Amino acid sequence: MTQAPTDARLHSFLSLCRAALGPTHVLTEAEDTAAYLTDWRRRYTGEALAVLLPGTTEEVAAAVRACHAHQIAIVPQGGNTGLCGGATPDASQPSVVLSLKRLNRIRQVDPLNNTITVEAGAILQQVQQAASEHDRLFPLSLAAEGSCTIGGNLATNAGGTGVLRYGNTRELCLGLEVVTASGEVWNGLRGLRKDNTGYDLRDLFIGAEGTLGVITAAVMKLYPAPRARVTALAAVEDPRAALALLALAQRHAGAMLTGFELMSAMCLALVTRHYPQLRYPFHRPHPQVVLLELSDSESAEHARATFETLMEAAFEAGIVADAVVAESVQQSRDFWNLREHIPLAQVEEGKNIKHDIAVPISRIGDFIASTDAQLQAAFPGVRMVTFGHLGDGNLHYNVSPPAGQDHDAFLAHQDAINRIVHDSVHAHGGSISAEHGLGQLKREENRRYKSEVELAMMRAIKQALDPLGLMNPGKVV
Amino acid sequence: MTQAPTDARLHSFLSLCRAALGPTHVLTEAEDTAAYLTDWRRRYTGEALAVLLPGTTEEVAAAVRACHAHQIAIVPQGGNTGLCGGATPDASQPSVVLSLKRLNRIRQVDPLNNTITVEAGAILQQVQQAASEHDRLFPLSLAAEGSCTIGGNLATNAGGTGVLRYGNTRELCLGLEVVTASGEVWNGLRGLRKDNTGYDLRDLFIGAEGTLGVITAAVMKLYPAPRARVTALAAVEDPRAALALLALAQRHAGAMLTGFELMSAMCLALVTRHYPQLRYPFHRPHPQVVLLELSDSESAEHARATFETLMEAAFEAGIVADAVVAESVQQSRDFWNLREHIPLAQVEEGKNIKHDIAVPISRIGDFIASTDAQLQAAFPGVRMVTFGHLGDGNLHYNVSPPAGQDHDAFLAHQDAINRIVHDSVHAHGGSISAEHGLGQLKREENRRYKSEVELAMMRAIKQALDPLGLMNPGKVV
Repeated sequence: MTQAPTDARLHSFLSLCRAALGPTHVLTEAEDTAAYLTDWRRRYTGEALAVLLPGTTEEVAAAVRACHAHQIAIVPQGGNTGLCGGATPDASQPSVVLSLKRLNRIRQVDPLNNTITVEAGAILQQVQQAASEHDRLFPLSLAAEGSCTIGGNLATNAGGTGVLRYGNTRELCLGLEVVTASGEVWNGLRGLRKDNTGYDLRDLFIGAEGTLGVITAAVMKLYPAPRARVTALAAVEDPRAALALLALAQRHAGAMLTGFELMSAMCLALVTRHYPQLRYPFHRPHPQVVLLELSDSESAEHARATFETLMEAAFEAGIVADAVVAESVQQSRDFWNLREHIPLAQVEEGKNIKHDIAVPISRIGDFIASTDAQLQAAFPGVRMVTFGHLGDGNLHYNVSPPAGQDHDAFLAHQDAINRIVHDSVHAHGGSISAEHGLGQLKREENRRYKSEVELAMMRAIKQALDPLGLMNPGKVV
Repeated sequence: MTQAPTDARLHSFLSLCRAALGPTHVLTEAEDTAAYLTDWRRRYTGEALAVLLPGTTEEVAAAVRACHAHQIAIVPQGGNTGLCGGATPDASQPSVVLSLKRLNRIRQVDPLNNTITVEAGAILQQVQQAASEHDRLFPLSLAAEGSCTIGGNLATNAGGTGVLRYGNTRELCLGLEVVTASGEVWNGLRGLRKDNTGYDLRDLFIGAEGTLGVITAAVMKLYPAPRARVTALAAVEDPRAALALLALAQRHAGAMLTGFELMSAMCLALVTRHYPQLRYPFHRPHPQVVLLELSDSESAEHARATFETLMEAAFEAGIVADAVVAESVQQSRDFWNLREHIPLAQVEEGKNIKHDIAVPISRIGDFIASTDAQLQAAFPGVRMVTFGHLGDGNLHYNVSPPAGQDHDAFLAHQDAINRIVHDSVHAHGGSISAEHGLGQLKREENRRYKSEVELAMMRAIKQALDPLGLMNPGKVV
């Protein structure tokens, strides 16, 4: 931890930054910096000596060297869409926000190698579009894709809806360019599927939330664009039946299965209450609905035929109560709309207590049953808003107050509810942060569940790569 | 680097080991240890104070603590099938070989989670079989699968023929159990597809070749077993045509494409010369032959129909000169036999100079053309034995002497030929070790091509996790 710099030191620091980045890219006025100092959910607000806006990797390196020389901490920031306060300064040290948003070029698309080389500040949707222009798919997809950056996705190892088939951001990355904590540039921009020439530094920076260095560019994997994507909804009795359907779908459709999302009756009730234009697709309410997506390299007809076969088998096995396969691209979109409006409907409904958790897929049924029961015992009448990426074991397991109770007042139970949920996650061999990272929000909570052996290795690595402790202090470790 | 222990220290060390592992699992007689001290290609022979054979993770930890207390280095060893001397002691320090082969249980198969938990000494083929008994596929597949261990596969991040679809060993691993350099047990045996709770220690140990700690167990991914696998051979004019076929196959077959292997005419000539029972499948010789494999979750008929459509498109585009689709499981096996006998045929033919390299797929054509030309200019008449996993950019790029020249004498040119090949790999943005690791063989060579920034980070991590430098010294870093 370092002291606030003297006026003379601060002046020298800002002069260095202005010389390196140009004066308009060093923000110090409150009206200019405010947007960078609060996270988008307005849970965290920090202070910064300046917001730096480098436009090239060399400028990032110069900015980091200036910080290093003046012992000023660095908080890297992408689209500022994180959910855990990882891109907002904490109060521990004088710091700057290093925004990567000007470093946003698509450097190269190599369709034959199925790779795209992008700078950290590129918006996820731009990367998807650049791939699409070459008849390729960049499969990372998540709610914030219109404003989050690929650098932020990498720093938090973002997940989303395509993980079942394509993996997390980590699995989609082949190489990185990183500015180290001392301001050197590591060019690890390799576009190789096989490379066993030393320690896996790439995967160490991915998911480190900017605490080990600044990711400035990456080589990401592309896939041939599928010819067709077809969606279906299946009504099932409970999460265990949804898991049986998952196993059946994987057997029938193999890698064609690219989406498998669970939505409880409560989730869909919220959506249809707040967005009545979105139609509930079944004649009667069902306890759980699964959204399945197939991506087909042959044709939409083949995808629909595969669905028919799968659903016949599922009916025969008594797994599904009802099912509907989208007959058009528009209908597929309507089905996804139901899923994607769940978070929005929650906002309309009022605050609740959210958990981004994962457990082994085989234990999801047990986890939901036993955790729901514990919560009902402790807080009778709470309403569970449970949905998520069942295909990869990741649930958004959210707890709303009993009907009629005040949502804001309910937040007072946050710590007690977190304890029940996270203890249960831990007991089921799960993760208390599946796809959102730790940031400031879950750093302490994480220490509760990680072994001392693992925490000690994390601290040793932090010390090895950032000996002055200037990279995004107060986050992760 | 440490001194040889005094007799008293050695006695105390061996007594500790015998007490921990049982006297029969501490080998010190030359006749008992010899098999552990030479690699299987007989390129490296080392010395060891003892060979330790722990049977449990706790015994591994006790052995490592004994080494730690006596400052004796540890060389972890699996099936001893490595190609780079990574599991053979070097001469730098007094050391023991720590063989994991008794630690070989399948701890758990979880079909619904699609995971298998195995100990490091389990033979790869046993893991495949255990998966198969649950109608699951463990897709890692390579020539040594009958004797290599999963721990060795993880330590070297092994590749093989399935990487195109399923990734390297790294992509197949969800969690690890590791004994750290100080002899603590890290239980990171998570079976989760999503977990963002700190630095990616798992991927740091994977591929570290035992230089950071000892992998003792792992949770590996399984896949639903495909209903059918069908193979085809396609004759093409040159590697560039093979790449065009790859792009076409990926577009038509998507994730069904699970194998794409290139074999030059020279490779197939060697195979049919030394194994005349293996029939060349075309009526006339072709410069290059591609083996394609489709894995189908529907049926063999659907896979063959997909091949027919693909090959029609390839003929129409003028990419392939001839093609044959396997009509039976036996014929599929025959096609793979051709591919798998190339390494054996090389052994029969006499020694050559081997390179395990990868370049971006889009640059393979340029790489082969320009490197072949440079080699012909420097060593007129050399015969190229080029084959490999074209689908992931990995070539076994082997140089045989001109016809009639002595194979052993030709090895004198090894350094000069390595320089031409590796310089060209580097110039094409490639890797000098795609799937075999560095070990002793390529440690120095690697330093030539890695940046100082990257090497410094590797050394910092080594120092952080193994401050006494006892884990597999002389390898990787």
